[in-house]
Amino acid sequence: MRLISFNRDGVRAVGVMLDDTAFVDLSKAAPSLPTNLKAILKMQGGLNRVRQAIAGRSADFTLDQVQLDPVIIDPTAIWALALNYQTHLDETGLTTSPDYPHIFLRHAGGQVGSGQPLLCPDPDIARAYDYEGELAVVIGTGGRNIPLDKAMDHVAGFSIYNEGSVREYQGHNRQFGLGKNFEQSASFGPWLMTPDEFGDPNDHTISSHLNGVIRQQESCSGMLFSVGQLIHYISQGYQLRPGDVLATGTPGALKPKKDDKDAQVDAHFDDGVQYAGRVHMKPGDLCEIEISGLGVLWNEVVASSKEYQIF
Amino acid sequence: MRLISFNRDGVRAVGVMLDDTAFVDLSKAAPSLPTNLKAILKMQGGLNRVRQAIAGRSADFTLDQVQLDPVIIDPTAIWALALNYQTHLDETGLTTSPDYPHIFLRHAGGQVGSGQPLLCPDPDIARAYDYEGELAVVIGTGGRNIPLDKAMDHVAGFSIYNEGSVREYQGHNRQFGLGKNFEQSASFGPWLMTPDEFGDPNDHTISSHLNGVIRQQESCSGMLFSVGQLIHYISQGYQLRPGDVLATGTPGALKPKKDDKDAQVDAHFDDGVQYAGRVHMKPGDLCEIEISGLGVLWNEVVASSKEYQIF
Repeated sequence: MRLISFNRDGVRAVGVMLDDTAFVDLSKAAPSLPTNLKAILKMQGGLNRVRQAIAGRSADFTLDQVQLDPVIIDPTAIWALALNYQTHLDETGLTTSPDYPHIFLRHAGGQVGSGQPLLCPDPDIARAYDYEGELAVVIGTGGRNIPLDKAMDHVAGFSIYNEGSVREYQGHNRQFGLGKNFEQSASFGPWLMTPDEFGDPNDHTISSHLNGVIRQQESCSGMLFSVGQLIHYISQGYQLRPGDVLATGTPGALKPKKDDKDAQVDAHFDDGVQYAGRVHMKPGDLCEIEISGLGVLWNEVVASSKEYQIF
Repeated sequence: MRLISFNRDGVRAVGVMLDDTAFVDLSKAAPSLPTNLKAILKMQGGLNRVRQAIAGRSADFTLDQVQLDPVIIDPTAIWALALNYQTHLDETGLTTSPDYPHIFLRHAGGQVGSGQPLLCPDPDIARAYDYEGELAVVIGTGGRNIPLDKAMDHVAGFSIYNEGSVREYQGHNRQFGLGKNFEQSASFGPWLMTPDEFGDPNDHTISSHLNGVIRQQESCSGMLFSVGQLIHYISQGYQLRPGDVLATGTPGALKPKKDDKDAQVDAHFDDGVQYAGRVHMKPGDLCEIEISGLGVLWNEVVASSKEYQIF
């Protein structure tokens, strides 16, 4: 089953895909269910109720009639992984603990859905704004002190995270802080695929395209800490909640072809750190992250204003 | 004006203190206003409507009749500061950028209100669980690219944050991650004091007591990056939202007296890092953080379970 969070003329609801474009609007098929996916995941047997509600239903809308929101619009916590693929360690020259995952947090204000614009920082403040294609894991049943062999029982499903990063701000100090949490810098979608359909994360491949050129491609089996190990570790300290998100880390960039001028080392990043094959995003770009057997998360990049705005 | 978020038999509401113990229940005084403080801050002129609603009202309850929730139970983002006092830099021997604040994120799942129990990790996984007394700033009017000279216009008020930290997990890798985000490890309260009553942060002093012994005491004027500078910096990348929280960093520990056995260096922290005068929290402890002219945030510490729990 593939579930979406969408809005139509500003009214938010949850949908279930019937194929790659048509979906059932749960607010019509099951008016008694919550119109928020996190709230459905919180309900005992929530996803089973969704399955029953859509049985025999035909499509209400197609994706081009609505806007997709982030799969979970309001997670209590978004746990993001740094340096969880050897290829990303290699390209950065950085180190990480072999014993413990390298974790930081993002907040829900920084993410948009598939098809919504990503905001590129004004070049006066930052020029190294990067995509990071990642497998996203969404928690279903909450838990604390989850044993390793029970960890996958707590997964509601899988999705894609583009863990967009502003390198200059990430490098302002040791903690990533603002650099990983710019407004509308990340995206999350297009849908949540349940584990019965998705299967083993190790059998899937992440591919990132910028303007149609492939820039990342690696099997999720390259993760240094597996999904189960991450759930086990985080739950030692934190009570994982329905709708919590794990962005499981990004692989390294592919080596660029010789004639690929976009992928040459440049001096945009203040620290002079630029990885071969990593190409910064700029207004007008199209970024697509695909996970095989799951789908494609795509976003166009638009310029962010540098004016003082009051909300 | 001092506002609280409270619950009574599980029903959540917002209150306005009339003195240090008695308060008006806004759900009675102004039933048309939201029962969530973030939602009130989002309303144009929300706090003015609160002021009008309580004019001439007498108290509905006293604090001992209710439970205090975190001042904001559902902030979009909690921006926390590392190493924002010279005395804390000195005791740790660490460095930080002189040009940019050192920022990490906490999530709302890790905080409780004043009077609610803090959870001490099981000693099998961590023994260095520390208080950090801090001035908390709550955003009122949201904004992006906020000029320094407009920054304080975006403050709804001030409160206290006990930015509880589990040192072993904080040291597992370079990003603080889980170590700053254990379940119920931090507290936030007792109330929000509006700027007209609080005045200049530089005129206030933070004092932290553990079991009645003073362990931290320093003027908020010791902050390396001021409240205004933090708002200005964060808003360069992020659209600050009503109800967002800034935990502005903790001062160093006071030097212990010679006969103070609790404050001697010990080997609890895996990295061997223990600061003179810093005393870990353990079950049964009482931790009180006071900010002069504002109030006291207090919490008892209880043992966390290490059993597998499903929620």
